[in-house]
Amino acid sequence: MVNYPNGKKSTWTSSVSAGGRGMELEHEINLTNQNYLDEDRAVIHKKPTPVTIVKVDYPSRNKAKITEAYFKTPSTTDYNGIYRGRYIDFEAKECRVPTSFPLKSIHAHQIRHLESIIRHGGIAFAIIRFIDFNETWFVPADRMIQYINTAERSSIPHDWFTENCFLIRETYTKPVDYLEIVDRYYFEKGDTADGK
Amino acid sequence: MVNYPNGKKSTWTSSVSAGGRGMELEHEINLTNQNYLDEDRAVIHKKPTPVTIVKVDYPSRNKAKITEAYFKTPSTTDYNGIYRGRYIDFEAKECRVPTSFPLKSIHAHQIRHLESIIRHGGIAFAIIRFIDFNETWFVPADRMIQYINTAERSSIPHDWFTENCFLIRETYTKPVDYLEIVDRYYFEKGDTADGK
Repeated sequence: MVNYPNGKKSTWTSSVSAGGRGMELEHEINLTNQNYLDEDRAVIHKKPTPVTIVKVDYPSRNKAKITEAYFKTPSTTDYNGIYRGRYIDFEAKECRVPTSFPLKSIHAHQIRHLESIIRHGGIAFAIIRFIDFNETWFVPADRMIQYINTAERSSIPHDWFTENCFLIRETYTKPVDYLEIVDRYYFEKGDTADGK
Repeated sequence: MVNYPNGKKSTWTSSVSAGGRGMELEHEINLTNQNYLDEDRAVIHKKPTPVTIVKVDYPSRNKAKITEAYFKTPSTTDYNGIYRGRYIDFEAKECRVPTSFPLKSIHAHQIRHLESIIRHGGIAFAIIRFIDFNETWFVPADRMIQYINTAERSSIPHDWFTENCFLIRETYTKPVDYLEIVDRYYFEKGDTADGK
């Protein structure tokens, strides 16, 4: 686990889970997205963590303090935006099991969301990191959905990733340089006519 | 000038504000988006309200209760998604001043965000409702930005809307049917080759 200097790490947690699990990947994707933004290469943001706000106090005129709120199950994925004129949409997950990725990590409505993004002409994928191997995979949503619909397992074995997915390269300024894969997989294949 | 009950708040609000002001437009847009989703016409969602979470309690094993959090200034717009293969991005505001829309209602970084969406090939706009007239305007972001960059006023007069924008129609199932305008303004003009 990384040390967060100001102790205020929860400010960007999406992984609702206790103890900040899953935050390292998120942090690295945020840095990468900021780099894409700075280079004006893409506009991709993480959506805020959805919370249901129950109580708000106004200790002073200008400051609203939320004193009771709850995490909500997200109805979509965590990240979306635009790249080379195309709509981009993805979910990111860390996996602590070394041998397989448990499918329960991705909610059914997130799968449905990714399906409809594909149907509407967007680029949909997942970024899945196997912590033990320090491998970060680019997982095209169509392949993942096909696996889910046909396999009878409740997890995706690690082998499937090596056969069907792309390892994402890490650079200093782009710790999770997933757009490099998007370029290769979606724009060089010539499967779409609308890449600029 | 209009009277602002708490001395601070301006004429518009998104969901964040006290007392639910500004939520009617948001509610109607959410209903409309749900209808678009149900008809599988578009996948457009409101982003969650961004909050900085400071303290979380775990009263029971499975339930996390946020006990201290603060509203954050949003760095992007409230809504985005995909329609006819195109990336869609917009901000929605209610305006309580009858004669003009105060520009401070839209943050500078939201304007920059809309600018970069246009630059990257997306469809960017604002939905602005004049409460007094019960008029809901579709405001193309390029026109709004041009006004902001050239005008020396701190608000946009109502007349400008009638000359430069499009009234959004209200139907029972689609209280704010903005995609009808998107069809006319972005797809029938023939200015893009990638409309399906």
